[in-house]
Amino acid sequence: MSSLKKNQEQELIDKIKDWTGSTKIGDDCAVLPGGSLASVDTLVDGVHFRTGSISFRDLGWKAVAVNLSDIAAMAGRPRHILVSISAPASLAERALAELYRGISECARSYRVEVAGGDLTGGPVLSISITALGEVHEQGVLLRSGARPGDLLVCTGDFGASAAGLHLLEQGESGGRHTYVIERHCRPVPRLCEAWALLRACGGRGALMDASDGLADAVIQLAMASGVSIELEAEKVPVHQECIEIAGLAGFDPLDWALYGGEDYELVGCIDRNSFAVLESYGKLNPFHVLGFVNSITKETELNLSNSAAQIRLDDNRLVELDGQKSFQHFENKPN
Amino acid sequence: MSSLKKNQEQELIDKIKDWTGSTKIGDDCAVLPGGSLASVDTLVDGVHFRTGSISFRDLGWKAVAVNLSDIAAMAGRPRHILVSISAPASLAERALAELYRGISECARSYRVEVAGGDLTGGPVLSISITALGEVHEQGVLLRSGARPGDLLVCTGDFGASAAGLHLLEQGESGGRHTYVIERHCRPVPRLCEAWALLRACGGRGALMDASDGLADAVIQLAMASGVSIELEAEKVPVHQECIEIAGLAGFDPLDWALYGGEDYELVGCIDRNSFAVLESYGKLNPFHVLGFVNSITKETELNLSNSAAQIRLDDNRLVELDGQKSFQHFENKPN
Repeated sequence: MSSLKKNQEQELIDKIKDWTGSTKIGDDCAVLPGGSLASVDTLVDGVHFRTGSISFRDLGWKAVAVNLSDIAAMAGRPRHILVSISAPASLAERALAELYRGISECARSYRVEVAGGDLTGGPVLSISITALGEVHEQGVLLRSGARPGDLLVCTGDFGASAAGLHLLEQGESGGRHTYVIERHCRPVPRLCEAWALLRACGGRGALMDASDGLADAVIQLAMASGVSIELEAEKVPVHQECIEIAGLAGFDPLDWALYGGEDYELVGCIDRNSFAVLESYGKLNPFHVLGFVNSITKETELNLSNSAAQIRLDDNRLVELDGQKSFQHFENKPN
Repeated sequence: MSSLKKNQEQELIDKIKDWTGSTKIGDDCAVLPGGSLASVDTLVDGVHFRTGSISFRDLGWKAVAVNLSDIAAMAGRPRHILVSISAPASLAERALAELYRGISECARSYRVEVAGGDLTGGPVLSISITALGEVHEQGVLLRSGARPGDLLVCTGDFGASAAGLHLLEQGESGGRHTYVIERHCRPVPRLCEAWALLRACGGRGALMDASDGLADAVIQLAMASGVSIELEAEKVPVHQECIEIAGLAGFDPLDWALYGGEDYELVGCIDRNSFAVLESYGKLNPFHVLGFVNSITKETELNLSNSAAQIRLDDNRLVELDGQKSFQHFENKPN
């Protein structure tokens, strides 16, 4: 589903910053004066979903969840959403009701109120959700907070959403593979997990959500923080169902984990003492260690790059993560 | 451009309130705890504009202006916008740059910062803007604040945007009719005017912006406040260019003023003492009197309606304003 590659997207973001003179663009949410957080994401039929392969109720859930995930990515608390939908006049009212039902379910699950929005016509279904919230009283975690010596940590597992999408695109409703379907259709914003991380690290760390894949998250953290990050392949958590489906389909599950996207897990960098606090929670600790943060090496600087994101493969080779392979949405529906 | 009629839209809004359990839907903006205002509006190619008949720069301006107008409609102060654009991959970067240029121009003109957003693919250009602001320190003006005995007041003139659209749809760039083209392509959010009204009435009044025509605004104010409002046709301000173009095109300029929409003028209800304060500003008073607010009569109640919005025509006949004729956007692009 990808045609705009990562570095093109980065260039475009830089241009938008230039065109608008905005200093707030670039993290998961805008942090506004007074400690408000605001974020918007749009899902378009044929680009981010296909109405045939996800129910309207799940779609409503997902549209809200991905926006709440942006608030989680800053360790904030979501409070309100605005819902702007454009839909073809041919869309049945029943479908619209199911869509709003899913929206409300997700909002209520995280104590978020639907505060407004609009509904208008359009050639395809498009759902734009604005999430509004507030920063946590202990601060905000930005992408730029990683420091050499930190551990790279994450919640959950990666690749399951891509596995679920693969099944749905094959016309399968999942059968016994309920986990990956659920992960694709009903992602969970990691709010409580983000707050646990913030409490453990006291605000000294980096955080984002991995909407475009684990590799992209690691690259973004390295770039924003001006550090080098090494990810260890053997430590990347991949669910058994994802491994099975990738095996049957002839894909590498690590590829789905790194580049598939839409897992909406948290990826962050915190120091070892903070991780020890999380570890003291025992089974209640939602974070795994994935790797570590280093200073930029001379070699990296000679390559004219001020950051680096690498993966240590099982055979001990160290290779650059490929920013070009990340999942990006900038494409028309194939007609 | 209208296929969803006003009462269908009202029914749909009631259903959305029901589906989402939201108590905040229904006014121009959501008023959030702490005095924040938030509003979102989406403009879709083929529904709200046609890329052939408006420049990308004007389109960017307009997309922001209509959202700031929602903040003005509550007498609030806009502070930030989020910009979510979905665009076909075929859209030239030059066009995108012009679009963001217009967005920035409008934002900067009203001291509003672009705080974030996203850019994604989609089959047609769609621009969703979230406006965030704060309530005025003297309070907020809702649609529901009209009281019997109030005067009905407005800013500016009506019908000019419809006249401009008519010219643009005829393929005319306006020629000497620069006023109506400007009114259609670069509407002005009436922020200072709203603040003047709020100061004059001390918060005791009703206000909204007439995005769907003057008639719709009067009907909405009457419904939300549970009052009867009488509009006087001879007092409706219509610009000379609008009268000329309507004459040439065989339209009634009053019809454009009442039902054309997109003028983004303010329509409100305040008491006579408050209007006297505005009048004391002399030429600096931006408001005209259009009519007055009455109690619901027995006759109206017998008609099972709890509000009424009527117009006194030049021949002294009193007729109901037609909610069905109002300009609504819920339609596909005709293919």
